[in-house]
Amino acid sequence: MSAPTVLGRDPSRLYVRYAIAGDVDAVAEAIRVEQTIEFPADLAPDWIQQEVVGQVEDRDEGSVVISYAAGVYAGGLGQVLNVLWGNVSLFEGVRVVDVQLPAPEHLGLRGPRFGVSGMRSLLGVASRPLLATALKPMGSSSEELAATAGVLAEAGIDLIKDDHSLGDQPWSPWRERVARCAEAVLDANEMAGTSARYLPSLNVPADEVLQRADEAKELGAEGLLVLPGITGFDAMRALADDDDLALPIMSHPSMLGSHVVNPGQGLDHGILLGLINRLAGADMVVFPNYGGRFGFSVEQCAQIRDECAVARPGVRSALPTPGGGMTLERVPEILDLFGQDVVLLIGGALHRGDLRTNATALRESL
Amino acid sequence: MSAPTVLGRDPSRLYVRYAIAGDVDAVAEAIRVEQTIEFPADLAPDWIQQEVVGQVEDRDEGSVVISYAAGVYAGGLGQVLNVLWGNVSLFEGVRVVDVQLPAPEHLGLRGPRFGVSGMRSLLGVASRPLLATALKPMGSSSEELAATAGVLAEAGIDLIKDDHSLGDQPWSPWRERVARCAEAVLDANEMAGTSARYLPSLNVPADEVLQRADEAKELGAEGLLVLPGITGFDAMRALADDDDLALPIMSHPSMLGSHVVNPGQGLDHGILLGLINRLAGADMVVFPNYGGRFGFSVEQCAQIRDECAVARPGVRSALPTPGGGMTLERVPEILDLFGQDVVLLIGGALHRGDLRTNATALRESL
Repeated sequence: MSAPTVLGRDPSRLYVRYAIAGDVDAVAEAIRVEQTIEFPADLAPDWIQQEVVGQVEDRDEGSVVISYAAGVYAGGLGQVLNVLWGNVSLFEGVRVVDVQLPAPEHLGLRGPRFGVSGMRSLLGVASRPLLATALKPMGSSSEELAATAGVLAEAGIDLIKDDHSLGDQPWSPWRERVARCAEAVLDANEMAGTSARYLPSLNVPADEVLQRADEAKELGAEGLLVLPGITGFDAMRALADDDDLALPIMSHPSMLGSHVVNPGQGLDHGILLGLINRLAGADMVVFPNYGGRFGFSVEQCAQIRDECAVARPGVRSALPTPGGGMTLERVPEILDLFGQDVVLLIGGALHRGDLRTNATALRESL
Repeated sequence: MSAPTVLGRDPSRLYVRYAIAGDVDAVAEAIRVEQTIEFPADLAPDWIQQEVVGQVEDRDEGSVVISYAAGVYAGGLGQVLNVLWGNVSLFEGVRVVDVQLPAPEHLGLRGPRFGVSGMRSLLGVASRPLLATALKPMGSSSEELAATAGVLAEAGIDLIKDDHSLGDQPWSPWRERVARCAEAVLDANEMAGTSARYLPSLNVPADEVLQRADEAKELGAEGLLVLPGITGFDAMRALADDDDLALPIMSHPSMLGSHVVNPGQGLDHGILLGLINRLAGADMVVFPNYGGRFGFSVEQCAQIRDECAVARPGVRSALPTPGGGMTLERVPEILDLFGQDVVLLIGGALHRGDLRTNATALRESL
């Protein structure tokens, strides 16, 4: 991927192509008002109709490009998302299929702190695919999860994350788990000369996300698993922007599915899981690979891959992290689709047979 | 509405009915594992299979009831949402159509601070429908919006909110707007003997939501408009739970549409916009009424109405706030559907002709 599609020429504007089922002109007219002034256009002053209401830039039989002025999307990522998909999300038969970002000085978003090359240098891995796995199953004690984490770190897995659902369940309370798993990974690294990182799940109350991230770092965690579908994309952005925290971020797609899986409605897989995750600071983007437990197609996965990688001035690239039922046998096929700049997320399959043997075999296969 | 449907008998468990297109048994098996251990069930210890994995309680030709143990959904609203709809959101052809909550002592959520009767007593309105409107259009200066707010307060509109998209645009920066509009409403109340409340939009950075809410209160705002589809339901819950803040909350559906508008996938309108908004502390629930700018049906609106009102021990009821293109002429029809416990949200239509005349006529028609 070299550069994104050109939708318009004004670097201060945000351009969005919406695919529309139905009367394209009528829906386009509705969208450009709905996403800006939400007011009878004929009652608005002329200058507001011209400078604030979205402008139709292009239309074809099934889609329209609408552009939005810098003043409209000003105020941060939340308002960018609101302009892209706020009230229009309530329309049937409309889907965001392409986005052209404004120039970085207008957009004002920093994106991933590390990106692909940053993650490689943090982990000391020059060119091979990165390896990730999840601590499971829920119900295990913190001691059991920590023991598993230690084995995986010694075996050479780069990134060891909590299963995203692990929050503050009684079997493994959050602080206890984070402390034990972080310690186990750091100890294993020292013993085995590895450099694994532990990423706890920030499946925690919204008003504690930033404080728990700091706490996780103090306890020895060296990355974070964030759930933007639950805690919001802008909470992830705030974590990524925190210069004192400065931890790599893996984004999990929990609750994001309904935005992408309905044909003709929502946002394209690449837009939501690739582009928006990047804008929100994800260094790594978890999504269900084709042929696993979920129904994403090869094309949809390739779209996420491309949106993670496509050059966007001022916004680092992210690492696609396909998971959701992957196995050791499928590694070559995954690398065929994603190339070397990928995080291979293999979870439950490592536990079929001996965990250490499987994890070691995975690491040595690369 | 007297009581919700009975899905099961254990007060500690969360029961969810999922409508399933396709092989009900196979998808049910997938869901009960996906929403809990995300791990090959046969590899999990017996006790985890029995006590942690979701249990199939009932099935018919097109749906299944799965129940989840208290330990699984423990940790707050974020994890409750994750259990209801986290990874399953990535499945096609699955929809949450009914939910039975655990008993309040297990659920641990306080819900709306004021609810229907609390809002009535705050506003001093015993039995008539409440009236709300939005400050528009984007592009107006803070001075213009404040002048509009004053007119609406004097005319007897109860709740005057920012248009949800108003964030920190250059035409009306957030602090300036909140200060001016709050002052205008308080002054108008004093002049006219009314008791209108101004609700600024918390369309602000995620890491500033709580602080901006405090600031809004200091500046004289007497309620908050919150965007859970952007800042997250649990951020709204945190605002509602804040005993020092103690302001009424109106929930706006921006970005929530893709969870409800796709037939056969997502969550039922009543579940997301009624039940989940209530669990997250919304005193008032904005949604697009049928026959306006959006495609919600009468039945979907009635479902939201019922879920706002249905008796749920420990969780106050909420006020349905139908909007999205309502007019003065439609008031009798809206009251036929929703009854008197409703907030009539009429925005742009008040501006066609003279604002003060229209707002006064609306108030006097009740």
